[in-house]
Amino acid sequence: MASSTKNDRPALAAELITRTPFPNSRKVYVQGTLHPGVRVPMREVALSPVRTARGEEPNAPVTLYDTSGPYTDPEAEIDLRQGLPAIRREWILSRGDVEECEPTGARAPGRADMGGPERRPLRAKSGRRVTQMHLARRGEITAEMEFVAIRENGRRERMAEELSHQHPGESFGASIPGEITPEFVRSEVARGRAIIPANINHPELEPMAIGRNFLVKINANIGNSAVTSTIEEEVEKMVWATRWGTDTLMDLSTGKNIHETREWILRNCPVPVGTVPIYQALEKVGGRPEELTWEIFRDTLIEQAEQGVDYFTIHAGVLLRYIPLTAKRRTGIVSRGGSILAKWCLAHHRENFTYTHWDEICEIMAAYDVSFSIGDGLRPGSIEDANDEAQFAELRTQGELTRRAWEFDVQVMNEGPGHVPMHMIQENMAKQLAWCHEAPFYTLGPLTTDVAPGYDHITSAIGAAMIGWYGTAMLCYVTPKEHLGLPGKQDVREGVIAYKIAAHAADLAKGHPGAQHRDNALSKARFEFRWEDQFNLSLDPERAREFHDATLPAEGAKVAHFCSMCGPRFCSMEITQQIRDEAARGMAEKSEEFQRAGGEIYV
Amino acid sequence: MASSTKNDRPALAAELITRTPFPNSRKVYVQGTLHPGVRVPMREVALSPVRTARGEEPNAPVTLYDTSGPYTDPEAEIDLRQGLPAIRREWILSRGDVEECEPTGARAPGRADMGGPERRPLRAKSGRRVTQMHLARRGEITAEMEFVAIRENGRRERMAEELSHQHPGESFGASIPGEITPEFVRSEVARGRAIIPANINHPELEPMAIGRNFLVKINANIGNSAVTSTIEEEVEKMVWATRWGTDTLMDLSTGKNIHETREWILRNCPVPVGTVPIYQALEKVGGRPEELTWEIFRDTLIEQAEQGVDYFTIHAGVLLRYIPLTAKRRTGIVSRGGSILAKWCLAHHRENFTYTHWDEICEIMAAYDVSFSIGDGLRPGSIEDANDEAQFAELRTQGELTRRAWEFDVQVMNEGPGHVPMHMIQENMAKQLAWCHEAPFYTLGPLTTDVAPGYDHITSAIGAAMIGWYGTAMLCYVTPKEHLGLPGKQDVREGVIAYKIAAHAADLAKGHPGAQHRDNALSKARFEFRWEDQFNLSLDPERAREFHDATLPAEGAKVAHFCSMCGPRFCSMEITQQIRDEAARGMAEKSEEFQRAGGEIYV
Repeated sequence: MASSTKNDRPALAAELITRTPFPNSRKVYVQGTLHPGVRVPMREVALSPVRTARGEEPNAPVTLYDTSGPYTDPEAEIDLRQGLPAIRREWILSRGDVEECEPTGARAPGRADMGGPERRPLRAKSGRRVTQMHLARRGEITAEMEFVAIRENGRRERMAEELSHQHPGESFGASIPGEITPEFVRSEVARGRAIIPANINHPELEPMAIGRNFLVKINANIGNSAVTSTIEEEVEKMVWATRWGTDTLMDLSTGKNIHETREWILRNCPVPVGTVPIYQALEKVGGRPEELTWEIFRDTLIEQAEQGVDYFTIHAGVLLRYIPLTAKRRTGIVSRGGSILAKWCLAHHRENFTYTHWDEICEIMAAYDVSFSIGDGLRPGSIEDANDEAQFAELRTQGELTRRAWEFDVQVMNEGPGHVPMHMIQENMAKQLAWCHEAPFYTLGPLTTDVAPGYDHITSAIGAAMIGWYGTAMLCYVTPKEHLGLPGKQDVREGVIAYKIAAHAADLAKGHPGAQHRDNALSKARFEFRWEDQFNLSLDPERAREFHDATLPAEGAKVAHFCSMCGPRFCSMEITQQIRDEAARGMAEKSEEFQRAGGEIYV
Repeated sequence: MASSTKNDRPALAAELITRTPFPNSRKVYVQGTLHPGVRVPMREVALSPVRTARGEEPNAPVTLYDTSGPYTDPEAEIDLRQGLPAIRREWILSRGDVEECEPTGARAPGRADMGGPERRPLRAKSGRRVTQMHLARRGEITAEMEFVAIRENGRRERMAEELSHQHPGESFGASIPGEITPEFVRSEVARGRAIIPANINHPELEPMAIGRNFLVKINANIGNSAVTSTIEEEVEKMVWATRWGTDTLMDLSTGKNIHETREWILRNCPVPVGTVPIYQALEKVGGRPEELTWEIFRDTLIEQAEQGVDYFTIHAGVLLRYIPLTAKRRTGIVSRGGSILAKWCLAHHRENFTYTHWDEICEIMAAYDVSFSIGDGLRPGSIEDANDEAQFAELRTQGELTRRAWEFDVQVMNEGPGHVPMHMIQENMAKQLAWCHEAPFYTLGPLTTDVAPGYDHITSAIGAAMIGWYGTAMLCYVTPKEHLGLPGKQDVREGVIAYKIAAHAADLAKGHPGAQHRDNALSKARFEFRWEDQFNLSLDPERAREFHDATLPAEGAKVAHFCSMCGPRFCSMEITQQIRDEAARGMAEKSEEFQRAGGEIYV
């Protein structure tokens, strides 16, 4: 493809982008059978053999779910101006329900300014709905659905062996089949219990599903604000967040260059991208909420839909009559979107325009397959405000909006809190399931206490793990900087890993058939003193190695049958191995024999 | 007091010890009424007033539970060779049931080598039991019990006001009264549902209680190993761990100078100290478990009891017949103590000597008031091994041992796992309550997944918070270095804070009447843009300030009515304040008026 440079903006430096593959890992692609164009990337971790008295025994490689896109594939050529390959474009065009269109309305400079190829936006042909939900309801298994099914299963061939070592989970109404079939994905999408956020104008994304009968997903927020950060930093933060495992990304930019930043992110992003369109709309009216109009908001939706944003947070549940319910709260309204709309409602003493124009919004969403993430603008911002009247009033309205969106075949998830003490978490899930008709729940944490600014990735990972177990489909991360400042790269990493932990803990508790595999493989490596394998199977191999090396830096220590916790003299793992050998030889003449062998154990 | 230096060891440098008080905080002491010698230290955080349209309104200071001992009191003189003041000595002597004795047996150099004053150990007079449980059962409210009651309540005068803003908790059989009275403490100790670990030879400690009707406590492990770390580092780690909030400390040293390290720690430690005596016993037999004898172990118990260790982990539940149950596990036996005893049992094909000599051990414990922490030597070391036959077989035996210890009036808690997926955590608590007769449960985590070495403070804080809510009385911390290396000072801080979060989240969920006070005060500060107060009320004021300053370093930003997340243009907290003002003025003519005022809001 030829590249053009239409302005003077220097191209983003490719060196900024982290591309190192994970150690001992290679990218593998599993091909679809229904749709041969489907190639699902996974990460395969090679393991070393275990040395036993009977010689070396191999350990099969472990295949892991991989969100990092082409960046961790050394074969892939990355050119940020070109963007990632448009793997979905043929699938979308072949369905015959879309057409190219002129970009509508007044808009900021976009793709052309990246110096990359021009591409005119797609939208539904007149009278058509192009959503995955619409196709699913028609009985169609799309390429996206097959992609998701393969991705959720991981490698099928090793599942049976692993399942025998698995604890049956305990689900709260979820019903995860032993194998995720493309038809199962279709049926979940059709009934609204899962979504595949995949705008027809974001053909670069690798499809994924959000629903409580699938792996629990996580979202990372990035975005510059008026105070700090550049486009370059945001693009690298996007790559970085997917590297550590985020399943979707929200661009919450509020400062300058919102449109351009988003363009760079979308064209280079392998995961679905969400936004809160009211932030950009507010910029267009100089930051004065009372000057917002439906028309400005609508044009912003279309602008972003044409760019390829995969889901929109819209706070249509913040109704005029709910606002006074927040007046006596400890911390009032803490959602930015919620407070902007609340202010508009009060200023005009009229109903929230995103609520009154809901049907028109649905028409727009259906034309590009943008999914709703119905915002929770009245979520509690402190323990004291948890589960109050304002919060639950809005949740009921979220349910009403969900049903109306489904009439337009628009995919929907619902946002949830926030700050909630542990004993009040389950009520959130139960009410959301009941009132929102099993649409996927997408929660921010929740934070289980207010007292630990600087550590809110932990206060919230506790709540996130629990609500994930109860049935929440996606967990929006919280970084250590929450409440204090904007996250930098290392904060993004800390937040993503904390949330991978929460999501994985929830998958184990739900009994997802693909979950315990990784725990078993890592614990086997640990028990067999395969240090390198233990690092490589962990969520953060670099950190694990660095911590080990801080105490025992010598390369030899990584094959040693001891570690720094106990030292070489006695090691419980080593002793256990002897017990196991004993048990294998039978308990009979064990005592004498053990005495004889004992002296040689500690070298 | 005169100090003598009996050997050439240089005194520990006092400069090593962290003594800075927390910002805007002062140490206050609440005096007892039953025992006038009781002075309970608390930390009082002064808050700034809030500026409103009606002028400044003061915010009352907040009193916090304080584990940091005299180190954070600028008035206190600290001399590590002298040790802390023996605040309990008069209480102990006045009960008339102890006598001084010659240190027994061959022992390593102790207190004298610190250069501090000589003090002969105390023990029970012949035929007497000196435990808090014994005294409680006799109906006696000790100074220690009154101390605990005052400490658990915090400052009574502000409780009523705060309670009105509190969510009622949801307990699993716990029954926390609205006010903790000395008599309530006595009754809980008498029935074995709480312990006050307080060796008569550790008069320096500030008494605390472990029981599910009290605040959830945490423990931090320190200790050098054969591989690394010095006495100086361990003493500072002790001070450091109590500074961040650990309620007890376990010294798990396994290398050289075990006795001397412990002496320095005990004489300077304001919180109860636990050990695993088998580690030192093993050193005495050159690290060969099969050479351990009852006599060596017994002498080690007495040696440590005379020094002042407050609780002993003893793995008496690892019975010979349970050992084969671990052979097919993913990760066998992962407890060091458990594996040492398992090896001894197998080597001799005889029953665990700590089990067969249990009654004699109880006699020793009763003579010094050392509490049992009955070890869980067969705890699961991986998700796959959770809740298996080996683990629960030992738990039943822990229950039997608990009952037998209570016959000697010895205080008991039970140790618990380990690695347990979320859905299997509650079963641990339920079985422990049922089988161990409501003795306090003391768990390590549990870790809710195996896949995150380097982040196991988080994997385990999730499980710890949950099991704390279910009724676990004390949570043993896990640092980020778990499974990888020995924790340094910063790891200790990370581990302690993660566990303060877990314990506090559990207190909120249980509805402890003293818990939500701090959340409310911090959230009020956050909402009112009192940045300094928000930092100072947090679990880690230094970290909170550092993170804030990373984005907005200017001093002026700490009084600004915005933060770096949204920038000065719009801020949800600010908007909410306007809504609140609106609501106060009534909804009637709001619209017009708001429009008029709107322009002036964003400066």
